[in-house]
Amino acid sequence: MGDIIGLYPGTFDPITFGHTDIIRRAVKLVDTLIVGVAINQEKSPLFTLEERVAMIKASLEGMDLSIRGQIVVEPFDDLLMTYAEKRKVDVIIRGLRAVSDFEYEFQMVGMNSFLNEDIETVFLMADARYQAIASRLVKEIAQLGGDINAFVPATVVPQLLAKVGRR
Amino acid sequence: MGDIIGLYPGTFDPITFGHTDIIRRAVKLVDTLIVGVAINQEKSPLFTLEERVAMIKASLEGMDLSIRGQIVVEPFDDLLMTYAEKRKVDVIIRGLRAVSDFEYEFQMVGMNSFLNEDIETVFLMADARYQAIASRLVKEIAQLGGDINAFVPATVVPQLLAKVGRR
Amino acid sequence: MGDIIGLYPGTFDPITFGHTDIIRRAVKLVDTLIVGVAINQEKSPLFTLEERVAMIKASLEGMDLSIRGQIVVEPFDDLLMTYAEKRKVDVIIRGLRAVSDFEYEFQMVGMNSFLNEDIETVFLMADARYQAIASRLVKEIAQLGGDINAFVPATVVPQLLAKVGRR
Amino acid sequence: MGDIIGLYPGTFDPITFGHTDIIRRAVKLVDTLIVGVAINQEKSPLFTLEERVAMIKASLEGMDLSIRGQIVVEPFDDLLMTYAEKRKVDVIIRGLRAVSDFEYEFQMVGMNSFLNEDIETVFLMADARYQAIASRLVKEIAQLGGDINAFVPATVVPQLLAKVGRR
Amino acid sequence: MGDIIGLYPGTFDPITFGHTDIIRRAVKLVDTLIVGVAINQEKSPLFTLEERVAMIKASLEGMDLSIRGQIVVEPFDDLLMTYAEKRKVDVIIRGLRAVSDFEYEFQMVGMNSFLNEDIETVFLMADARYQAIASRLVKEIAQLGGDINAFVPATVVPQLLAKVGRR
Amino acid sequence: MGDIIGLYPGTFDPITFGHTDIIRRAVKLVDTLIVGVAINQEKSPLFTLEERVAMIKASLEGMDLSIRGQIVVEPFDDLLMTYAEKRKVDVIIRGLRAVSDFEYEFQMVGMNSFLNEDIETVFLMADARYQAIASRLVKEIAQLGGDINAFVPATVVPQLLAKVGRR
Repeated sequence: MGDIIGLYPGTFDPITFGHTDIIRRAVKLVDTLIVGVAINQEKSPLFTLEERVAMIKASLEGMDLSIRGQIVVEPFDDLLMTYAEKRKVDVIIRGLRAVSDFEYEFQMVGMNSFLNEDIETVFLMADARYQAIASRLVKEIAQLGGDINAFVPATVVPQLLAKVGRR
Repeated sequence: MGDIIGLYPGTFDPITFGHTDIIRRAVKLVDTLIVGVAINQEKSPLFTLEERVAMIKASLEGMDLSIRGQIVVEPFDDLLMTYAEKRKVDVIIRGLRAVSDFEYEFQMVGMNSFLNEDIETVFLMADARYQAIASRLVKEIAQLGGDINAFVPATVVPQLLAKVGRR
Repeated sequence: MGDIIGLYPGTFDPITFGHTDIIRRAVKLVDTLIVGVAINQEKSPLFTLEERVAMIKASLEGMDLSIRGQIVVEPFDDLLMTYAEKRKVDVIIRGLRAVSDFEYEFQMVGMNSFLNEDIETVFLMADARYQAIASRLVKEIAQLGGDINAFVPATVVPQLLAKVGRR
Repeated sequence: MGDIIGLYPGTFDPITFGHTDIIRRAVKLVDTLIVGVAINQEKSPLFTLEERVAMIKASLEGMDLSIRGQIVVEPFDDLLMTYAEKRKVDVIIRGLRAVSDFEYEFQMVGMNSFLNEDIETVFLMADARYQAIASRLVKEIAQLGGDINAFVPATVVPQLLAKVGRR
Repeated sequence: MGDIIGLYPGTFDPITFGHTDIIRRAVKLVDTLIVGVAINQEKSPLFTLEERVAMIKASLEGMDLSIRGQIVVEPFDDLLMTYAEKRKVDVIIRGLRAVSDFEYEFQMVGMNSFLNEDIETVFLMADARYQAIASRLVKEIAQLGGDINAFVPATVVPQLLAKVGRR
Repeated sequence: MGDIIGLYPGTFDPITFGHTDIIRRAVKLVDTLIVGVAINQEKSPLFTLEERVAMIKASLEGMDLSIRGQIVVEPFDDLLMTYAEKRKVDVIIRGLRAVSDFEYEFQMVGMNSFLNEDIETVFLMADARYQAIASRLVKEIAQLGGDINAFVPATVVPQLLAKVGRR
């Protein structure tokens, strides 16, 4: 019986406590967790792809994870479903907020099922404390000089402050 | 490394194609899937607990499942989280509709996390064709003489018609 | 070319300004509008079926409608789609509130399309002033002695007050 | 210049940490806060009106409130707006959950504004940790023997357990 | 008695099976259906206005429509309500998804009713299979080399692939 | 006992009847109302900061407000919570639409509570007639030559028409 491979895709610009909470939950459910970092050119990310991958790796080192198997962080520039097929993914993992961009999720799952109906998508709900955290707002708060320690891992704080010219 | 035990709880009064679609997806992701049938006295179900368990078992026999491990159908009358703890469940599985009683789901996950934060809850989205199917409406349609073949497994049809006095 | 027959189904217990606003809009779009009054036993309506039909007819007499063809008010006790087929309905008309019981609407349209995919359902949005009016709340307000003139047609006011023992 | 009188209405069957969090926030904004306990016969509450009022008073005694003025707990059996007028209320206070029965709130505010447009309604959002707590689910959990200490004030716990026959 | 003129406005960049499903339903309900193609400069469409009109016309030729009267495809650059008045439109037709950008729809209908309260807006719900299809995501999938045959009419496929440099 | 200071923040590009309705309600509840005009560079507003402040002041002069204390209109370029702290704000006031960008509101309140949990946020619901009005759509309507008198105060009309080159 083959092991379960899960893929948690995102832009992670930068990784927040909302993301790490989903990762902490997901590693308990799959044998291999791939954290797939989308290039996402059209969103013009604040951090380069390399920086985003490095920040995720640094954040994971500080976490106490109940890992079943292994965890892999890597970039991808394919269509999500093409990438998932190449990596033999069984299940795509998405964070679900009480109030989220549910329309986008519904469309993505619906259209992805046309592309490959064998790859499932599951939604995990982050802890209530973390559901309000959005990378976009964290960047706004950092730019305007607010305290971001409650939103992103400690290793991300100085990098984000430096990037927005606050350090 | 221990195997993953998943629990798909519900009233299943009766089981519909919406439920079987979630089961079909869930068995690919866990090693043991427990379909837990809640007694649910206060909802005064149309079918007895024994009938509901039997109908699920009969429906599963007709399905072509990519089973990883085993599938168990059983009733429970405990609090969901107490039952999940007794059965050493790793993950509770819920169906998610594009438009669902999301408030109830959000409250249940939120309150359950206070009771036992180690048991995760994941949401799976049924196929678009099945998302509109609700046991409550199927019963209404059966009572008023409508055709229910598109909504419930073939083995359920005669039992539901008999129960509502249409056969 | 045949004329368009529209069906506006509901419990109308009693008819409110929310309902009359939808009727006023619907008559401009169809050649025959059937206002179908569901018996709805399990909801135990406050008014009898006859009273509900009579109140709708009385309310329509007071309205200045741009009627294209005819308008018919009648009770029905069939499954909605069975009734619609018998009356050769082309389109079912539903009121849509900005915040409505959209789950129920979505399920009903979805399940009805399995029963007869040739009968369409269209949603009309009531005027913003009327979207908050719900028969259930109007009855609560009347029972507790509140002023209901802003919610139901003038002919309904004394009947509702009498029914709840306020006149 | 007159002082601001706020009214926080509810059934409080029983009071939960979700309610006490809203009260904690509301007392900072008004000069007099009236906690109005609705009789709510048709919902057939678990606790009597007297028990519910007493539990709220006991819970408030244990709280460290930044009270601007006074806080009053009292039952009411009028229509909400009639009661608010009698008590010269300036503003009605409602708790708002990220995912709440928003339809009911929208209808109530909309219909209330027809009854008296001078009384405002404001929504306060409970802390994320408390948004999932619903009195209905707390009662279910207590009945099935679950731990309710995370959901209701310490003084409520033994009373709720006694009421459901668990102590 | 005049005939009913319906207007289905959109950007159609490009037309998808979601759009054709709405058109298939709408032609059964009106005597003349105008498919109005908005220039929509600020969204910087992928296809020119001429290309979008031509693709719609080509797609309609391949459809088996129960046409009551005639169907017209034409561009417009006016305010929607101004254009609707010029063309003597009785009813504007919008597609409604279970999870859609309902805020935008609500605002548009609400503001349009101030501009001309005689023109109605009706919402039609696309088949469940097509509700997830969004032009924006189809373009993303095409750009990344995914299979788009399930989302757009056959005549659109080669044009979309050519436009994104995949053919 | 200190007086209550409320802050109603926004871009006001330009002020609409939706905004004035919230202001009319808010002044009854606080002793000082600060209307804070965000610079909002990244949204590239149509009007300059000075123009937006001046239009709000002109609009307020024409209103019949039940002012408890004073009302202040001023720009700010800080992080919202930093600005609120500097101005010793007790409560932030937000408009709530039946269908609104609730995700953004939920995230903002959630993240703001991490930054300063002593500053409350309350939501007020605008009159149903005004809930559909969005500055973005008003600008679109003005640009395309539609009548904007129903959406913005009389003093704003000529300035908006001039800005979009319609006068």
